[in-house]
Amino acid sequence: MNLGTLNISLKAIGNNWEKLNQVSNPTSNTSAVVKANAYGLGVEKVANYLWKIGVKIFFVSTVEEAVELRQLTNKEAKIYYLNGFSKTDKEAVNEFNVIPVLNSINQIHAFKHKKIKKKIAIQFDIGMNRLGLKKTDIEAFSELINPSDVKLVLGHLSSADDINAVETEKQYNQFVKFSRLLPVAQKSLAATAGILLDKKFHFDITRPGIGLYGGAPFKKAEPVVMLELPIIQTKTITRNEGVGYNHTFVAKKTMKIAIVGSGYADGLFRFLSNKGVLYSDRIKCPIIGRVSMDLITVDISSLKTIPKTLQALNVEHSIDDLAKYSDTIGYEILTSLGARYKRIYNYT
Amino acid sequence: MNLGTLNISLKAIGNNWEKLNQVSNPTSNTSAVVKANAYGLGVEKVANYLWKIGVKIFFVSTVEEAVELRQLTNKEAKIYYLNGFSKTDKEAVNEFNVIPVLNSINQIHAFKHKKIKKKIAIQFDIGMNRLGLKKTDIEAFSELINPSDVKLVLGHLSSADDINAVETEKQYNQFVKFSRLLPVAQKSLAATAGILLDKKFHFDITRPGIGLYGGAPFKKAEPVVMLELPIIQTKTITRNEGVGYNHTFVAKKTMKIAIVGSGYADGLFRFLSNKGVLYSDRIKCPIIGRVSMDLITVDISSLKTIPKTLQALNVEHSIDDLAKYSDTIGYEILTSLGARYKRIYNYT
Repeated sequence: MNLGTLNISLKAIGNNWEKLNQVSNPTSNTSAVVKANAYGLGVEKVANYLWKIGVKIFFVSTVEEAVELRQLTNKEAKIYYLNGFSKTDKEAVNEFNVIPVLNSINQIHAFKHKKIKKKIAIQFDIGMNRLGLKKTDIEAFSELINPSDVKLVLGHLSSADDINAVETEKQYNQFVKFSRLLPVAQKSLAATAGILLDKKFHFDITRPGIGLYGGAPFKKAEPVVMLELPIIQTKTITRNEGVGYNHTFVAKKTMKIAIVGSGYADGLFRFLSNKGVLYSDRIKCPIIGRVSMDLITVDISSLKTIPKTLQALNVEHSIDDLAKYSDTIGYEILTSLGARYKRIYNYT
Repeated sequence: MNLGTLNISLKAIGNNWEKLNQVSNPTSNTSAVVKANAYGLGVEKVANYLWKIGVKIFFVSTVEEAVELRQLTNKEAKIYYLNGFSKTDKEAVNEFNVIPVLNSINQIHAFKHKKIKKKIAIQFDIGMNRLGLKKTDIEAFSELINPSDVKLVLGHLSSADDINAVETEKQYNQFVKFSRLLPVAQKSLAATAGILLDKKFHFDITRPGIGLYGGAPFKKAEPVVMLELPIIQTKTITRNEGVGYNHTFVAKKTMKIAIVGSGYADGLFRFLSNKGVLYSDRIKCPIIGRVSMDLITVDISSLKTIPKTLQALNVEHSIDDLAKYSDTIGYEILTSLGARYKRIYNYT
């Protein structure tokens, strides 16, 4: 066994969902966002666990993900897909009972043209300028849609993780105004950050994603993943010896190094070269030299005994900590976790 | 269909192998490195195609990859795994006829202890301070190994892509010196960069990896991948409108934008936010705002008509071009290509 073990706590995902559910408006339904293979953690395991603890509504990104999720989970689960309807989706919507989120006049035309007798969701672009109908689309949209066909209206806040952002209030007002056009439909605005910001953002359905998986801005989240990497070999190097490709690290003194079986092909970004750290429980082991495709070299001079494994993610070093070293966010750490790890799911 | 299409030319991989084979010493065997799922492109398709055009020797990273490859490909293929022998590998080596590359005295002890009657390979650390036996291990090693059990000795150059690197000659000399200890074994030193550097590095087996897949430093490589992403929606935004999370892009004038169905969960790094470009054939469309998990927004103001797709990789924009925008190398672009793309393999 030369590669790492990714421990995924379904129990922690469940607990995080429960906590977000508890802080939500009692009249609001808490769904779960499981797009991108449940943020890289395995949609089959995650969605089925969440279903068992009471989650009834799921959001994914693409129609392919929606169909896959329908095949993997309970047939009663409500499954929305966010990235819009295209004319090849008719079979998926009819046969797999997945609900498209329509984002544009073109998509509404395509849906109508296919004569599908199913409810839909509509997304409003309330200021992020990503997916959704804009103010200028409203007239055309009102003529095309029968309000009773719309089960849910959605908006997405661009800056809910920044409590000082002036956009949030503007976008909230825009959402309220837009959703008056479809008064019968349920309303959904808040993702994790919006849930934590204020109850007024909760409406009928909240859509937590990153909070379930233990990431910022949900400070009270339980950590969900631990990543254990095997030490394949250790060696002692002396002053002036170079390490790794192009010798970007040169030893200033004698040191003990470990070569660890994981690399950028496993989602530990090359950007971590000479920057990131692995951990031996609570002790930091700096990455030295370039991260290569399947190997990482670290300085273990500060360890008294040589362990069998080091951790890239543990209680000392969260997805957000690793993200800082990688110049990104916890979300990208999760979705980049490689396919070669042995995945162990913990239920308790 | 909301997600992208990854076109992979097996023909180009084959042609790149042929070219590297042609520039190699006639007495040298050209193998193929197919670790990390053939650099993200699909090991089953790639290895079987290469086998058909005459590749007999394959290198992967882990024992798991070696066993998987044995199950996917011809039983006569020679399969080496680079990341070392561990005591749990006995069954794999015996039953799947895969050859471990031993990198340390510990690994040699473990192999001997398991009483496996198979040939092995030995890697020397000739200066990179990654995997391999060092000078200080030589005495212990010579007592443990029966030279006739060693089929192949390997070394790896740290800086072969830099023609001015002083390390290369030193490491070459070290390799020659070490390999005299096992005069009967075959010798392998060069990866793609080493093949291109000089015939003296070729020895008995060369190990091209990135060159097969169209990446630097093999300038004459044919491009192997094209990545086509669907435009889900377009919109017009006006001066002072923000785009994406936290509005990190604010329009200075009226512009036409496209929202494209791919994101950092698909290997287009968040680092590309406000930096990278997509292409409409030969026309650059700058990425504006943050790359999000499943979506990218680009400025398409310079396009006369709106296409159905844009390209993240095409003839204008190679893996190395995309890598520059991502502050990495083509290798990491390839190994990060996401699982959600529809993969189309071209044989001609």
